Amino acid sequence: MKPKALPFILAGIIVILAAGLIWALIYIRNIQTPLRGVAPLIEVAAMEPDSSVWGVNFPNQYSTFLLTRENQERTAYGGSLPFDRLEWNPRLVTLFAGMAFSVEYNEDRGHMWSLEDVREIARTNDDSAGTCYSCKSADNPRLWAEMGPAEYFSTPFGELGQQIDHPIGCANCHETDTMRLIVTNPALENALQAQGKDWQNFTRQEMRSVVCANCHVEYYFEPETDFLIFPWQNGTRIEEIAQYFEEIDFSDYVHGVSGAPMIKMQHPEYEMYTADSTHYRAGVACADCHMPYKRDGASKFSDHNVRSPLLNPQAACGTCHTDVEYVTGRVGVIQSQVFSTMVLTEEAIIEAIYAIEAAASLPGVDASFLEEARWLHRESQLRWDFISAENSMGFHNSSEALRILAVSMDLARQAQIKALLATGE
Amino acid sequence: MKPKALPFILAGIIVILAAGLIWALIYIRNIQTPLRGVAPLIEVAAMEPDSSVWGVNFPNQYSTFLLTRENQERTAYGGSLPFDRLEWNPRLVTLFAGMAFSVEYNEDRGHMWSLEDVREIARTNDDSAGTCYSCKSADNPRLWAEMGPAEYFSTPFGELGQQIDHPIGCANCHETDTMRLIVTNPALENALQAQGKDWQNFTRQEMRSVVCANCHVEYYFEPETDFLIFPWQNGTRIEEIAQYFEEIDFSDYVHGVSGAPMIKMQHPEYEMYTADSTHYRAGVACADCHMPYKRDGASKFSDHNVRSPLLNPQAACGTCHTDVEYVTGRVGVIQSQVFSTMVLTEEAIIEAIYAIEAAASLPGVDASFLEEARWLHRESQLRWDFISAENSMGFHNSSEALRILAVSMDLARQAQIKALLATGE
Repeated sequence: MKPKALPFILAGIIVILAAGLIWALIYIRNIQTPLRGVAPLIEVAAMEPDSSVWGVNFPNQYSTFLLTRENQERTAYGGSLPFDRLEWNPRLVTLFAGMAFSVEYNEDRGHMWSLEDVREIARTNDDSAGTCYSCKSADNPRLWAEMGPAEYFSTPFGELGQQIDHPIGCANCHETDTMRLIVTNPALENALQAQGKDWQNFTRQEMRSVVCANCHVEYYFEPETDFLIFPWQNGTRIEEIAQYFEEIDFSDYVHGVSGAPMIKMQHPEYEMYTADSTHYRAGVACADCHMPYKRDGASKFSDHNVRSPLLNPQAACGTCHTDVEYVTGRVGVIQSQVFSTMVLTEEAIIEAIYAIEAAASLPGVDASFLEEARWLHRESQLRWDFISAENSMGFHNSSEALRILAVSMDLARQAQIKALLATGE
Repeated sequence: MKPKALPFILAGIIVILAAGLIWALIYIRNIQTPLRGVAPLIEVAAMEPDSSVWGVNFPNQYSTFLLTRENQERTAYGGSLPFDRLEWNPRLVTLFAGMAFSVEYNEDRGHMWSLEDVREIARTNDDSAGTCYSCKSADNPRLWAEMGPAEYFSTPFGELGQQIDHPIGCANCHETDTMRLIVTNPALENALQAQGKDWQNFTRQEMRSVVCANCHVEYYFEPETDFLIFPWQNGTRIEEIAQYFEEIDFSDYVHGVSGAPMIKMQHPEYEMYTADSTHYRAGVACADCHMPYKRDGASKFSDHNVRSPLLNPQAACGTCHTDVEYVTGRVGVIQSQVFSTMVLTEEAIIEAIYAIEAAASLPGVDASFLEEARWLHRESQLRWDFISAENSMGFHNSSEALRILAVSMDLARQAQIKALLATGE
């Protein structure tokens, strides 16, 4: 061996060793940490739509989730027993005149009924927007990834439905390999982005609320494209949402009696809850009350039988509140206050609607007053509906709910006054 | 000794011993138990009006009570710093047109200022009713006992004032020999009786709220006699109070602009707080927050520097709530919601007032619509004033406050509508 060759041999060995070490480090880094120290029993494919497959690895979560199919219970103002809202409150027929909700408006059942419920309702048919499936199936994350959101939203309901077999399930909120909570709905991703928020930086406790916002929010379909949009660009307060709809000159339908350009609100639970509600400010997540922790032997897990806390108050309220009877009593007081105020508001809006109809039928009507009256009707009703369509009869944020109803009342009566003035007063 | 005398002698001894024992038992029973095991330093006369005399026995309570003269601090919406409410909110000038509150409406100072404050205000003079002193002096319990309530209330302010030297003090809430809390105001005694309630059966915790109702309530003076009355015969809810005033055909004044028969509401803190508020239902007394317990060495006592809990949150809120910053933040949110709703309601009432004025000035006005409009103005304003005059900007019972404001809003706009209809619409 030539003496001069030694440095090159040593250098070669160093390079080989370094390369080997780098490879080993990368390999180690990529090893999946078994979840909570226990290796999963089976491997679950990314975005697996069938919750029963996930259920092999997570039997407690899955077996409680299955109960969303069994339990159909009514609470004072809601629950998961289906009922006809129009029969319960006939004022809604007038309030929603001119749109499908005046014909059919049923209370939904639990998460595992989502697919049957959306297919049974008379408001959807094969030509409806496929967007209606956005909150109804665990097939969605896979379809959004495969088709892209734009194509998904533009596919008709009947055609899209052929690729959809599973109701709401694990894949709607969880990432398969890590089980961490994730935002899956592209509309939520976009809406958070529009506000400069990145859910990847959210705390676990924030995620335990924001995944509910995959669906439990106000939304609309973009005209022409049917793209799903959450109207949060200015913020999630009712005033900011109303302003957004005004800025983009949007309305869902023209009211069948008053002729006003209307907005239909959809279950804005996330927006109401996060608007400085007392529980939200105290750091409580949606899941704390709707999916309270349970124990099965040594194992602690979230109850996936998502439902009204009033059906499960000992676990839902009792984890924090020592006197469950007292706090559920408080819910009753608050809900009855919101309910009585809501009924008064509905009566005011209905009087405004008929006053506008009467004014519009007169030949010499003042068109500018009439237009103002219609705008006031719209602004009043979208505020009332923000509380009415929200699933908690105000409890998620009682003072905000009552504040909004008072403003809605004011605007409804002002609409009625403008209609009177339009007749030549 | 005759043998026959023995039984009589023995019987006599028995009678004497029995009588002696009975006397001794009665004597023992009547011995005053020294308060908390400590004999008072000096004897205080029953209904002693001078708090400094009581202060010899209770230096901690008295020295904190003296601070009600020192501390003059402003909170966001109240406090004990005097300020001109009319300057703060010029809408009140229109709302109270036709009565003294539109000329002068000042925020009061602490308890020890009561006498100066009532004598300085321009709304009282020598010919005013002596009843105005009912909540202003520790001389009252003695005077009510000596003169009888009827004579006290019918004596003119100037004349009665010559017998009144002491501001609010110990005698207004305490019985001298036992220091227990007692109802001293005959109007409160009567109002409780009218509802079938006897405060002698109240728990100590109930007494720690009801003694505040000696003064912090809605009241009126009986016409002719000036007897002080709390309008609680039907109950203490706003609807029940309004109904009572309607039943007895009472009004405080005629509105200077609308001509409506009005009710002026006075600080109904007790009524609002006890109307199913969350703190009341949780068993919290007024004194728990406004007079939180303090320690002086081994001695625990109630802070008699009665004031806004917001000026003393660590003791006032922190005794129950672990996160004082969170709960005071909640107060801020609630008060701003109530405040914004209150302003909207005031604007609605003012529009109603001017609409009624305009209608009344027309020759062909429909008198029946006009009368309805005026009645609606009255009913709206007494509800708004129930919240506006109540010293907590809604915090004592936020959902009830917002509920009442929504109803007030509704009635105000209905008054405006009736006024429009009265013009021939």
